[in-house]
Amino acid sequence: MPELRKDPITRRWVIIATERARRPSDFARPPVVPSTNGSCPFCYGNEALTPPEIVAYGRNGAAPNSPGWAVRVVPNKFPALGIEGSLDRQGIGVFDRMNGIGAHEVIIETPDHTRTLAMLSEEQIELVLTAYRDRMVDLKRDVRFRYILIFKNHGEAAGASLEHTHSQLIALPVIPRQVSEEVENAEKYFFEKERCLFCDIIRQELEDGVRVIAQNTHCVALAPFAPRFPFETWILPRRHSSCFEEDAPEVYRATASMLRDILQRLDAVLSRPPYNYVIHTSPVGRERNEHYHWHIEMMPTLTKVAGFEWGTGFYINPTPPEEAARFLREASRTVAP
Amino acid sequence: MPELRKDPITRRWVIIATERARRPSDFARPPVVPSTNGSCPFCYGNEALTPPEIVAYGRNGAAPNSPGWAVRVVPNKFPALGIEGSLDRQGIGVFDRMNGIGAHEVIIETPDHTRTLAMLSEEQIELVLTAYRDRMVDLKRDVRFRYILIFKNHGEAAGASLEHTHSQLIALPVIPRQVSEEVENAEKYFFEKERCLFCDIIRQELEDGVRVIAQNTHCVALAPFAPRFPFETWILPRRHSSCFEEDAPEVYRATASMLRDILQRLDAVLSRPPYNYVIHTSPVGRERNEHYHWHIEMMPTLTKVAGFEWGTGFYINPTPPEEAARFLREASRTVAP
Repeated sequence: MPELRKDPITRRWVIIATERARRPSDFARPPVVPSTNGSCPFCYGNEALTPPEIVAYGRNGAAPNSPGWAVRVVPNKFPALGIEGSLDRQGIGVFDRMNGIGAHEVIIETPDHTRTLAMLSEEQIELVLTAYRDRMVDLKRDVRFRYILIFKNHGEAAGASLEHTHSQLIALPVIPRQVSEEVENAEKYFFEKERCLFCDIIRQELEDGVRVIAQNTHCVALAPFAPRFPFETWILPRRHSSCFEEDAPEVYRATASMLRDILQRLDAVLSRPPYNYVIHTSPVGRERNEHYHWHIEMMPTLTKVAGFEWGTGFYINPTPPEEAARFLREASRTVAP
Repeated sequence: MPELRKDPITRRWVIIATERARRPSDFARPPVVPSTNGSCPFCYGNEALTPPEIVAYGRNGAAPNSPGWAVRVVPNKFPALGIEGSLDRQGIGVFDRMNGIGAHEVIIETPDHTRTLAMLSEEQIELVLTAYRDRMVDLKRDVRFRYILIFKNHGEAAGASLEHTHSQLIALPVIPRQVSEEVENAEKYFFEKERCLFCDIIRQELEDGVRVIAQNTHCVALAPFAPRFPFETWILPRRHSSCFEEDAPEVYRATASMLRDILQRLDAVLSRPPYNYVIHTSPVGRERNEHYHWHIEMMPTLTKVAGFEWGTGFYINPTPPEEAARFLREASRTVAP
């Protein structure tokens, strides 16, 4: 019997369609393996092929835009938004518009073209998270920005146009509707119960156990109760924490460890799938609050989004999260060659 | 300069990213051309390969589940929802669930495997719309259903698992959040202004002209002001009409004509692209109202949805709708071979 489930954070319903494909082997597709052919703008020696760097980590005093870095942040060469200019907000009859002002940056996670994020050391992944944090803190000084989004597209099927492992940052002059809805729902819940919705979910999930994939001192990884996609996985700090960029050093360390753990489990169970992840955090100017709880949402690209999803915002997911969690819990974490 | 635009119906922002690919030739991909190899459950003589038919049109008295039909409606062989049983609604701590009760049907638009919907006659497309209407009217008698969605996935990239041209119907026991938000926004607008938001948009667009693609006596086709996707096109009845399934015969005829017109233009400009379309209509039980306006949203599958879109519900669209409308307006409507 298929099941309808509602996500309490977004109020989105999903169909867990148990009559359909569900096991990892039903989603067979070519593994994402970076090749070493051709010239790559994210490799050592090609620093001049990107716009001048914003910041680099680990270079120890050598000149900017030269090799030796461990993590490098550059402006996107084909930015979706422009950093220069004023917003020039306008109404045109029933419509609203403004100039596309924002920042669009690329975080190059390693100089090594052949490694994916899952293959990096915990220290290196922690450095990537530090770069995220530093760029967010810096960009929040710009009064034009309302929300800063960190996301990663891994593999062509997940929208990556370059295979050298990297993440992206987009700073926006408006709060995206989906983010404000999530925050408003969490705020309503807090207003009614004086408790954080996410803290309640974490407590219930840890007691129940069937959707828990892994945990360490500061983080937990869950298959959410109403996932949009097969093997969707969320990483959350266990202690209440409303904003990613102001969390404690030990939480970043634990998050790096958990991110690596989960990426290796996904690689083992799904044979190195393409994936996206997104950091959900509080909007600019309302960072410290009792109702929102930052987290990372990870979505392997296994199914196609089609007319039904576009028409309704309703997702059909063939894999119950309890089964996805079991596969990921039992995974050996050995990265497939 | 990129631009941020807000859709007044959904309150969704999009980025019109003019620095990126935008012309039809930038979206080159293989055309969707049905092949004639192999056995297809939607062809004449294979009626036994589908579940027994719900209704067929044009067979003129021959036995059910035999050849001779013009349009045939069958249950989906791999339904996302089951038709039998009770909803059994439950709360589990912070979560909500119910049984996956609903209808999932397939509308086979023609017996001819080699033709796409764009290649059918106006009369045949009108018959397809009649089948949509009849199935909606019939399923609305089931008190368990709150919303009935008609959609079409054309081509593998758009999520079609069978290439023989067909549409789908899903009847749901809940109103999808995206639908209720759209209806609520339209209701608020009406409450404030005593006018239908969609009627206001149509009036403004017809006066302005730059985003109008085509019009006939009863319908208009527009590139919406804030489209999520390149070449996204909406077809709307010109006269206020809140629900698809209770509209007048002359409106169905005009819609069939406009749907064929637009599909042929998309085929000509984008070389037979994969696409989805979705009918947006009022929820069950609130069909007749002054604030909502049914319409068809058509989305060619040209770009990939990735981390940014999943994280925000915010879309990056490289093609300004004014340019898309110009290409489609000037299209020859000759179907590529």
